[in-house]
Amino acid sequence: MLHWEDFRVGEVTELGTVDVTEEDVIAFATRFDPQPFHVDPEAAKASPFGGLIASGWHTTALFMGLFVRGILLDSASLGSPGVESIRWTAPVRPGDTLSGRVTVTDSQPSATNPRRGTVTTTSEVFNQKGELVMTLIARGHFARRTPAH
Amino acid sequence: MLHWEDFRVGEVTELGTVDVTEEDVIAFATRFDPQPFHVDPEAAKASPFGGLIASGWHTTALFMGLFVRGILLDSASLGSPGVESIRWTAPVRPGDTLSGRVTVTDSQPSATNPRRGTVTTTSEVFNQKGELVMTLIARGHFARRTPAH
Repeated sequence: MLHWEDFRVGEVTELGTVDVTEEDVIAFATRFDPQPFHVDPEAAKASPFGGLIASGWHTTALFMGLFVRGILLDSASLGSPGVESIRWTAPVRPGDTLSGRVTVTDSQPSATNPRRGTVTTTSEVFNQKGELVMTLIARGHFARRTPAH
Repeated sequence: MLHWEDFRVGEVTELGTVDVTEEDVIAFATRFDPQPFHVDPEAAKASPFGGLIASGWHTTALFMGLFVRGILLDSASLGSPGVESIRWTAPVRPGDTLSGRVTVTDSQPSATNPRRGTVTTTSEVFNQKGELVMTLIARGHFARRTPAH
């Protein structure tokens, strides 16, 4: 099980892939982001996107699924204080297959909790054509294997 | 319908409320963030959170639902380039009722597209006790009512 000490700055992990279906795009957006270009194929055709696109929050959630199953479930994760940046750099469309890559970009012991540290990751999500569709800079708390003195 | 020109810096909008159920917390997290403290009530009890908490991505999605229904569906929204910051400041638990507040904090014409502008918002989400559970700083593109010359 990965503890805070095991995350090394510069380390890169390739995650698995996830398929994006029209049914899922519409179902997620109907609930959480019902803008016409996310839920209505006809309205989406007439939009600047030229067709249905996934909510950016759906893309973050799909990435999180890959990240959790690929890394966090085998770690002493203690949750996340937050996110420094998200960029949705290209539309995600039904039929796309997304893949994820996580790079550890910073690691700091907690200033207040000797049993915890924080890891900053920069993550990239690509579609099946290799186009970057999202970047995400986020922090996570992890238990230390060996508490600080 | 709100266009870019209608968003004034300093303007505050109170959104509606949304209830958080245990069923929804577990269903969202099972799909997108299956960490034990989001999906397993027993494991969550033994975690530092002392019980089941919602995925932070579930909280962002619930907020987005309020934001879209309260503001974006009545606007010339053209999607979002990204997010500057998310802070998950307190746990969200089953049984909570969340409310949202959006403040317009910046507004800029597009440097490249005379028909578009960008609005930056700082949003806050509170639980039924008035505790701040999330802040979000994000940008959105909107069509201009009157294109720039």
